[in-house]
Amino acid sequence: MSVIENAYYSAANHGEFTLGDIGDLMLEDSATLRGCHLAYQDASPHNVVGPYARARFPRVCIGDDVVAQERLLREVLGIEEIALVIGASMGAQQAYEWAVRFPDRVRRAAPIAGTARTFEHDRIWVQTLVDTMRCDAAYADGWYRQSSDMSAALRRHAGLIALHFLSNDFWTACRWRTLGFSSSEDFIIGFLEAAFQPMDAGDLLSQAWKWQHADVSRHAGGKLAAALATITAKTFVMPISSDQVFPPEDCAADQALIPGSELRVIEDVYGHVSLFGVNPSFNEQLDAALTDLWAAI
Amino acid sequence: MSVIENAYYSAANHGEFTLGDIGDLMLEDSATLRGCHLAYQDASPHNVVGPYARARFPRVCIGDDVVAQERLLREVLGIEEIALVIGASMGAQQAYEWAVRFPDRVRRAAPIAGTARTFEHDRIWVQTLVDTMRCDAAYADGWYRQSSDMSAALRRHAGLIALHFLSNDFWTACRWRTLGFSSSEDFIIGFLEAAFQPMDAGDLLSQAWKWQHADVSRHAGGKLAAALATITAKTFVMPISSDQVFPPEDCAADQALIPGSELRVIEDVYGHVSLFGVNPSFNEQLDAALTDLWAAI
Repeated sequence: MSVIENAYYSAANHGEFTLGDIGDLMLEDSATLRGCHLAYQDASPHNVVGPYARARFPRVCIGDDVVAQERLLREVLGIEEIALVIGASMGAQQAYEWAVRFPDRVRRAAPIAGTARTFEHDRIWVQTLVDTMRCDAAYADGWYRQSSDMSAALRRHAGLIALHFLSNDFWTACRWRTLGFSSSEDFIIGFLEAAFQPMDAGDLLSQAWKWQHADVSRHAGGKLAAALATITAKTFVMPISSDQVFPPEDCAADQALIPGSELRVIEDVYGHVSLFGVNPSFNEQLDAALTDLWAAI
Repeated sequence: MSVIENAYYSAANHGEFTLGDIGDLMLEDSATLRGCHLAYQDASPHNVVGPYARARFPRVCIGDDVVAQERLLREVLGIEEIALVIGASMGAQQAYEWAVRFPDRVRRAAPIAGTARTFEHDRIWVQTLVDTMRCDAAYADGWYRQSSDMSAALRRHAGLIALHFLSNDFWTACRWRTLGFSSSEDFIIGFLEAAFQPMDAGDLLSQAWKWQHADVSRHAGGKLAAALATITAKTFVMPISSDQVFPPEDCAADQALIPGSELRVIEDVYGHVSLFGVNPSFNEQLDAALTDLWAAI
């Protein structure tokens, strides 16, 4: 099986990273990623060879991510206690997984704009992304020849991001102006399409499956309250005020179930896209909250 | 050119309707619908024959709808003064068109869950519907053989409706239960797919174009405030509290520009789907507002 050459997933684009060898990784969904290497920042279906390449890439869940990360920290870097687990969006789902799975080793947790279990509205949202990839004639059941064959699908994907990652207020108030764009179409093409067009559809679909199945409650027989009650890390739950993807009310519902936790809503106008840090005040609020979290214990 | 046989668009399904002959209708976008018949409730690309059939169906806008309706009322039914123009969703956009276009003949207007001009977020939303139709291999540039060839596209269309016509709260609170469904999937299949699956993709695309281009401001050189200031009808603007498609804040922005108008928000939990009247209190609130509107002048 061939790999897809895709310059997006390179050190030149993402900065230098180190690959840590964590050996074979048995996945929750039963397959095994053999000879798994974990990049210290990122990893994906498009660059795997062998029987599990491309469309046959196994279903990897948030739990598998965290098992791989923990093994890298312990076996490669020699780190066992974690002072702070922080992550945004699906990274927040990893942070929840860390806090629930290793309660005696995680001292602080900061899930930003993400939930402990994917809510139904989010599952429906992600399905629209999956649908727009899979329906493309070029997709060929996942065996398209190169990432750019899925260019039209990735453009539709960016259109769905325009709908849901940004708020109604963003479009009505023409907030793309303050980001240096000359029209809403200029923003969609110059920012959103620019962000998603270089990616690989198979990688995005793999990520979509992972997103739809994020759920720490599986550690407590499906009971979310019981799972979150086991968290001992000092936790700040940080939704973004205008986020439709992981709405503040859903994040607050998680937070209410975590002992000793606090809800710190980050006020911003760019919806889920606020995570790009386009607004200076986003980073200021984040820094202030993390400083408080650091000092809290 | 053949027409598409589609039982959805029949008197058996929509109830009996009368076809009024309003002659040739010259459209704003320059084509002419020849020998136009207007059904007293509904009309569409799938049932036109000749050079403008199917994929070549001309672009019809809200203004054309209203010109046709006005001609039907005046020429066929002999009605010139309108006591109340009422419409929901794109029907509300028709109501705005009536009130701006014929200020001396419309006494009251009740636009429900719709705006006078399609806002940018709405245009982006409708584009996701367009994209999911057009990308389908079966679409064949609009020359698919029968409506059911677009079944997969219509299923994706229903998935997008699930995302945006209902609110996050609807899914989180499992409000489909009170509508008699056993799971969210049961609701999506049994209600949303059931609603859209029998329709014709070409008709929906024609409607999508109309939706994206709704704009009464073209009567005042693109100035919305100037256009709405000309309304003399007593107007109640009635958004739905949980509606993401035509959000209350967008409807309120219109209302603020209409002399002597009132904002009457209908409180309901089913988002834009509230319009199906599934909640008894929806109809009660609507009746109360219309009673007040009737008595107001």
